[in-house]
This record gives sequence, structure tokens and C-alpha cells, in this order.
Amino acid sequence: MTRSWWGWGNVEDAVDETELRALLNRVRALVPGDLAGHEPPGIASLGLPAPRVTPPVSLAALCSAELADRAAHAHGKAFRDVVRNLQGDLRHVPDLVARPRDERDVTDLLDWCGRAGIAVIPYGGGSSVVGGVEPRCEDHPAVVTVDLERMDRVLEVDSTSRAARIQAGVFGPRLEDQLRPHGLTLRHFPQSFEFSTLGGWLATRAGGHYATLYTRIDDLVESMRVVTPSGVSASRRLPGSGAGPSPDRLFLGSEGTLGVITEAWMRLQDRPRWRARASVRFDDYAAAVAATRAIAQSGLNPANCRLLDASEALLNAGVSVGGGVLVLGFESAGHPVHRSLERALELCRDHGGEASADTRAASGAPSGSGPGEGTAGGSAVDTWRSAFLRMPYQRDALARHSVIAETFETACTWDTFETLHRAVTEAARQAMRETTGTGVVTCRFTHVYPDGPAPYFGVYAPGRWGGMVAQWDHIKAAVSEAIETSGGTITHHHAVGRDHRPWYDRQRPGPFAAALSAAKTALDPAGILNPGVLLPAR
Amino acid sequence: MTRSWWGWGNVEDAVDETELRALLNRVRALVPGDLAGHEPPGIASLGLPAPRVTPPVSLAALCSAELADRAAHAHGKAFRDVVRNLQGDLRHVPDLVARPRDERDVTDLLDWCGRAGIAVIPYGGGSSVVGGVEPRCEDHPAVVTVDLERMDRVLEVDSTSRAARIQAGVFGPRLEDQLRPHGLTLRHFPQSFEFSTLGGWLATRAGGHYATLYTRIDDLVESMRVVTPSGVSASRRLPGSGAGPSPDRLFLGSEGTLGVITEAWMRLQDRPRWRARASVRFDDYAAAVAATRAIAQSGLNPANCRLLDASEALLNAGVSVGGGVLVLGFESAGHPVHRSLERALELCRDHGGEASADTRAASGAPSGSGPGEGTAGGSAVDTWRSAFLRMPYQRDALARHSVIAETFETACTWDTFETLHRAVTEAARQAMRETTGTGVVTCRFTHVYPDGPAPYFGVYAPGRWGGMVAQWDHIKAAVSEAIETSGGTITHHHAVGRDHRPWYDRQRPGPFAAALSAAKTALDPAGILNPGVLLPAR
Repeated sequence: MTRSWWGWGNVEDAVDETELRALLNRVRALVPGDLAGHEPPGIASLGLPAPRVTPPVSLAALCSAELADRAAHAHGKAFRDVVRNLQGDLRHVPDLVARPRDERDVTDLLDWCGRAGIAVIPYGGGSSVVGGVEPRCEDHPAVVTVDLERMDRVLEVDSTSRAARIQAGVFGPRLEDQLRPHGLTLRHFPQSFEFSTLGGWLATRAGGHYATLYTRIDDLVESMRVVTPSGVSASRRLPGSGAGPSPDRLFLGSEGTLGVITEAWMRLQDRPRWRARASVRFDDYAAAVAATRAIAQSGLNPANCRLLDASEALLNAGVSVGGGVLVLGFESAGHPVHRSLERALELCRDHGGEASADTRAASGAPSGSGPGEGTAGGSAVDTWRSAFLRMPYQRDALARHSVIAETFETACTWDTFETLHRAVTEAARQAMRETTGTGVVTCRFTHVYPDGPAPYFGVYAPGRWGGMVAQWDHIKAAVSEAIETSGGTITHHHAVGRDHRPWYDRQRPGPFAAALSAAKTALDPAGILNPGVLLPAR
Repeated sequence: MTRSWWGWGNVEDAVDETELRALLNRVRALVPGDLAGHEPPGIASLGLPAPRVTPPVSLAALCSAELADRAAHAHGKAFRDVVRNLQGDLRHVPDLVARPRDERDVTDLLDWCGRAGIAVIPYGGGSSVVGGVEPRCEDHPAVVTVDLERMDRVLEVDSTSRAARIQAGVFGPRLEDQLRPHGLTLRHFPQSFEFSTLGGWLATRAGGHYATLYTRIDDLVESMRVVTPSGVSASRRLPGSGAGPSPDRLFLGSEGTLGVITEAWMRLQDRPRWRARASVRFDDYAAAVAATRAIAQSGLNPANCRLLDASEALLNAGVSVGGGVLVLGFESAGHPVHRSLERALELCRDHGGEASADTRAASGAPSGSGPGEGTAGGSAVDTWRSAFLRMPYQRDALARHSVIAETFETACTWDTFETLHRAVTEAARQAMRETTGTGVVTCRFTHVYPDGPAPYFGVYAPGRWGGMVAQWDHIKAAVSEAIETSGGTITHHHAVGRDHRPWYDRQRPGPFAAALSAAKTALDPAGILNPGVLLPAR
């Protein structure tokens, strides 16, 4: 397999001709426009400047100055990243890509960069969609991207406590491969599972497989090791502790600004043996939301509880429905879960929901190994799940055909959801009228909490080749403004990076910003770590 | 009711003659020694120095310089606090006790103290057992204790999202009283429930009612307002957010060193309607631990899962058993829970556990309002629960009769529990041999996690009147050392305060200490907030 330098995932997995034709046919009805295709540029044609720095001899073997490496590490994987790549617009490229083999290498790299004032971009899978790995570091003489991919091992497994010590650079599949012989699993399956790393999940507080309860990676952390320019911060393995503010919670979500996460003890699960799932149709969206809220507050804690609105159901699950489709799933390693599903379906019926024929309970079924596990079959659930994993590839194909296809996400309390949903949808539509003429907004819930949902919006609009970044930025600014003023968070699990800064700065309490900034100065006195992310570059 | 100035809770609820006789008879067998009683001193006899400071006219109405107030705010409620009170040993007494009525008052108080360099001790219910509210602030010209008790209202209830905006100074019972008309409950019932406040729970990361899942107050917080000397930090109401490191998690566990928590939006629960509970006897302690671990890792998430060892069962539940007693409880507002209990009992039987005759499932039973709710009956569960609430009163009575009765707690991963348990127990016994000649150590689990338990130890030993503080300090130092070197945390839910500092300082990662210290300086540049707690006084 070959990783794409300009787009999502593996070159071999890109959308083929058949998939492309079907995709364009589906999209044509929604977004009329010029659907001519464009080829990505060759790397040699990008005219990248020469590296501005040479590593010391002792670190030379860790560092690559190859064009392909530098180009592939210039951007994350947001729509605007892919479009800029397609147009050969790479203004910020790391001078070097360093691949440490162990913590000592990380320390040595930070020491060198600290002495030379070189900016450091900690890098996991590079799947950031918020400019989190893009080296916009004008104030530094050079930039080194520190790619952790060589630190990819499970170092220790404690089956008694169900935990493992894991290096931060491991990608999802290889992590699960190493846990499988022990009968254990992390069960953290973000959409980026195949192309993102443990360290990236921790640094960005990634959202995972579980729609309820263990929604974010934060709660799965037992302890962490973080290399900072001021030393290694190593927390103690503890199931819980009330000794002062949590050290781990400072580094979770620090997005590479406070240190480089090198390893963590992670809480694991036994592999699930019992499963039950269903999809439920609603004629009315408000009723579907009410049913989802009832389930979120029931204490049933489904592993999957994803409400697709009518557009999302149609576009990505091929289901035509008036209000929405709720995708429900329960799982357990220890006991049957069909009664929990039955109770959840009862709550759905109370709100007019009708379970589809694909409702089923599986017991003792063989376990798969990833986000697509156990998806054989032709149900709405299955269709949506397969689509879920194909989405980024399809987005890239659409981008090549001047279709704007991007997502954004938030979370809010239940009492504000209706207002927020309306404000965001109208802001998106208004912005599309202004910049693309037309377009579609969809909404699904990726995670739900007793006190509110995490809505995830999709935007599909006809773009103008050469102008799509500005068009998207216009839409994104409008919806971010709507989220901010409606009381949502600028991000539930995509992180802040550089692109969410204007709204994050308004959302974040002022005194906390001062505290975080002081903590940053204490840990990174030279200000070399991911400058411009979370805090202003110094 | 009148609060005791020197001991736990209400004067009227103190141990009476009948309870005292029974208590001393029980204890006599375990801790031979002089059991003569001693009276607490009168406040007038304490010889407290005059206040060193006079409040400005604008704040005078908020401030009390009364001897009784100052004496009652001098110590927390640890055994060593009670003993020192009984012996009239009050070396550190606040100069004034201020009772702000609203956030503006808090700001004004901090402004005044900041200008004058006066130390400020934020104070909730004063039930600290770690020196957290004791004004050992030699470097400051005066000390003002800021008691939040007047800020005790539920300001807003959002039934849709099941959350409420609550002032920090509210005590447990009054909080539940205000939520009850809405059919909602916080269900946070620490042993101190009646005598501790929301703000205190948040500042110390208190452990509550739930033995699993929502063990600590941290997870029940939606947003917080904190008055710092550098301004008010107000986080946004959100069910979840991945926007940078969590602002709330910096203030949770900050123990009054970063600011004064004035209010919080808290996540609430519907009042439970279904309950099922049981107690299970084990002949072998290791088997009991294994069964508890199996339940903790089962995903069944019991509300109650407290393993008492044989001594704890005998002393506090009146049950004679070889290995231990596991107290199990399930509850739900939405669905029956007896199947969860059945499954948990199955796991117990796998490890040789035998459910007692008091096993029962309740459905639609009337809900009580506190930690002792629904405890009518004579089972081991009931006996233990009643004892649980009487323990602090009995400890005070024992202290008056020269019996050392105190607890300490920790958490560790399952793989280290056996080693830690042995090390701690042996350290306690060795220390008792050295300082009291004899004594008993008991252990129960207050909370359990998939990756480890939170063991809570009790110590009962014959003290020497006039020497009990030194005796206890000797024992406490020995067990803290054992906890620290065995990989446990110096505190799971009692906080750090001033007394746990030596071990906390070793447990806490160095770079995190530097970050926390820098955050403290940014928020509290004059260093007036609870000096000596968590960090060295400046």
C-alpha cells in the first residue's frame, strides 16, 4: 500500500471509476455545477524550497529532507488541505521530517531544536482537519516535523488490570493486531482509525467508537509519558486519583504545544461477544431527537447511538425517511445485551420510531478487528457504516471534481440543540447562497451524552475550481460563528489546531487562557512546540 | 441543630451514653488501654490571640471575628484535628471568617486580601481531613477564611438536559431539597454529605455514592465559575468538548489554590425507581477480591460495590466471616436491574461467594434523600450503611477515650493490589507496634474501576492521652510511605491539603508541578490563595 501525499489514506484505496460514476450521479442532483475532473500535481512540479536547516550529524539518520516526505507532511487531511494540495498550493512545508526511534531520540531532537529556535510539529498520522500539523511558523528560522511512526509497539500488557503500555506512534490497526493475541482491545475506532495514531488521539482528545459513556480517548488513559523541553512528565498508573488537578488532563488536548507524547498506559476491554443492533426510522426529526435524548438519559449506554437526519440517511445510507434514522448498537464481553436493545426500542416507540427489519441480536459472533467489523449484510446500518469509512476517499474524489464536501462538528446541551441546529443550518445555507449559490447541509449525532448531543454536520456544495478554499472558508466562518454564538463548542473531537483559534479564543475562559499560557512557558520556554496552535505564537 | 466546634457534625447527634457503652465494649477487646473519658475545652479557655487585621468598612458586615467562629474554622475534621481541639491545641486560627453573599462579595474579598497580602482560605463545609482548611500561613500578616455557606441556592434547573446551576456553598441535604421538586438528584453522597458543600466536593475531587462509573464529582460537572485574583473563569455549559485541555479539570482538585469556586452547572439524575441489592460472603479474601474485579470489569456498573474485609465486616457490620463481605447494589430510574444483580451474583459464585439472605430487588420503592436512603431492615448491608454514617461521631467519642480511630485511602491497579495491601497493612502494624503497642487495620473498597480498586483502610489503636497526634502521625507517615512506594496514589478522594504534601510531591510528575506552579502564579500573582496546599507557599 502507498500513502497518498495529497489526499486521504492509501493510493490503492482511492475511489475507482465505477464508484466515481455512481458518486457523481448521486451528487449531480444535489449540487449542479461543473463536474470536470482534475489531476493532482506531481511532487516535482511543486517547486518546494530547499530545507533551511541541516541536522547535526548525531541526528542526521533520523531526518529526511526528501521532497515527497516534506510535501506529505505539509498539510493535514481537511478538505481545504486536499484542495490546496490538488492545486499545488504548499506555502508552508517542513524543512525536515524527523522519525525518532525512541524517547531518547525525541529528547535529542527537542534539545537541538530548542537550542536553534527551530519550530517542532509533533506528528502522528497527520489526519488533522484543523491545521494542527501545518507548519505556519513564520517567526522561526526552520521547522522540523517529528513523525512518531517508528514508535509503534505495545511494550507491556497487564491482563489482570486490562491495560497496556503502548508507544504513541502506533496506528490503529497495528495497535489492535498487537492486542488481539491477549484477547484485549482498545476499541477506539475514530473514522481515521487506519490513518491516525494513539499519540494523535491523545493530543487531540479524539472521539471514538463508543457513542455514549467512553466517547473520548480521555477516559481510557491510565497514565502518560510526555517529553517536554523541560523534562519528561511521567504520571503514575492509577485507576483513579484525587491528588490535585489531573496531570494527564493537562496534556490531553494539548495538541503538541506542551510536549511530545511518547507512550501511555491505556485501559483495554475484553473483546465483545454479545451484540445487538437496530436501526429505527422516524417521520419527525424533533421526535427522533427526543427519542435519542431519552436513550442517552436512560443509563442503557449503547455503544452506538447515531441519529442521521433525513439528508444524511439519504446521502450516506440510501434510506428515504421523513425525520431521521437512529442507528443503535449494544455490545458486551460478559452478558447478553438484547434486553437493553429492547428497552431502547421501547423508548423509540414512545416517540413514534419504527425499528427496521434489520434489527438483530448476535451472540457469540466472531469478533472483527475494526470500525467496520461485523458489517456483512445489506441493512441501513451496514450501508451507513461502509459509507462512513469510504467518506474521506469520496470527499477527495469530489474535490477533484470541484464539489465542496466537508464536515464540522460541535456539542451542546439538549435544551439548546434546536436553536443551535437551526442557527447553524441557516448560517450554512446563507453562506452557500453567497458563495456557491446552492448546497446541502446534513446532520448526524456522532456521540450523545445525558446532557446533550454532539452534532456532526456535512456540507455538499458546487465549488469553483481555483476558488474552493475561499468558498469553504466563507462557509466555515459562518457556521463557526453560529456555533459560537449558540453556545456550542467549536470542536467536540476535531481539536482546535490553527483553524479553530478565533472561536476557541472566545470560548475559552480568560483566566484559563492565562494559566495555560503560563504552563506552556514553563514547559516550553523557547516556544518551539507547535507555535500558533491553541495559543498565539510567541 | 448546633454544629460542634471541635468535632464532627451536630452536637445533638453526638454519641450518647448507650451508644458509647456499646462502642467501648466492642473496642475494648481490640484495643486494650486506658479508656477514661475527656471533656472538650471551653472556647474561652483556648486563649486565642486577637485578630491581626480589621476589615475595611465596605466588607465589615461580611466578616466575623467571634472566638467561636474562628475556633471552629481553625481545623478540618481529621482525627488529628479533633484530638488537637480536644487538647486545646489551636496554633493556627484565622483572624477573620468572611461569609460572602454573592460572587461580587468574593471578588471584593479577594481584592482586599490581595492588596494587603492577607492569606485566603476558601472554605466549604470544613470537613477536610488533610489540613486543607487549616491556616498554617506563617508568611502572611493575617489569614481570612472565606466561608461560602451563604451561597447555597440552586439558581436554575434545566430539566431537558438534566442539569442545574448551583451555588458552591450549598450543603448536601439542602442541595437535594432544592432538586427534589424537579424530580432530579445529584446523587453525590460522600460520607460527609450532611456537612460538606458542592464547592468543597469540586475543589477536592470528592468521591461519592457511585462505586463504579461516576465515582468522583469530576464527571458530573458541566461547567464552573471560579473567582481568581486575575478575574472570573467561566467555562461554557457543554456535555463534552475537545477544545484544548479541559478548563474545568484544572480547577477540579485545585483545593482553593487557584481560585474560589462560586457556582457550577452540574449533571443530574432522575430519581431511581428500581433497585436491587445483596451482600455476598467469601471465605477467602483473595477470592473476594477476584470476584470484585470480575464485577468491576463486567460492564454491569453497580452503584454499590464495596468489599469489606473480615475485620471491617466484624467491626462495622457485625458480620463474622472468613474472607470478606461484598456489598452490592444496582439502581435505575428507567428499567429493572435485578438481572444485573443476578449476573453479578453469578460472578461471585464463580469465586466461591455466597449471597446472604438479605438479597432483594425493589421496584418502584419510595426514594429516600440521602446516603442512608432505603436502609430499613436488619441486614449486613443495612447495618454497615448505618454504621457508615455514625463512624465520624463514633471516632470523636473514641478520641475522647484515647482510642486512635482514623482512616486513609488510596487507589492502585489490580495487578499491584495484593502487594500494596500487604505492604500497607504491615507498615501500619509495625508502626502501631512501635507507637501504640498494638492495634487493628481494616480494609474496604469504596470505589472500584475496571483497572483497579480504591482501598480504604481503618486503623484502631490504643492511644496515649496527650500523645495521640504524634502517635497517629507516626502511623500515617509509615502507611503513606508504603502507599507511595507500592505505586498507589497518596489520595483517591481525600485530597492533598497540607498533610499529604510530602508524598504528593513525589507522586506528581516534575514538569507538571512546574506547569501547575506557573498556572498558579498567573492566576494568583500575590500567592494569597490557600498557601502551602498542593504547592510550596511562596
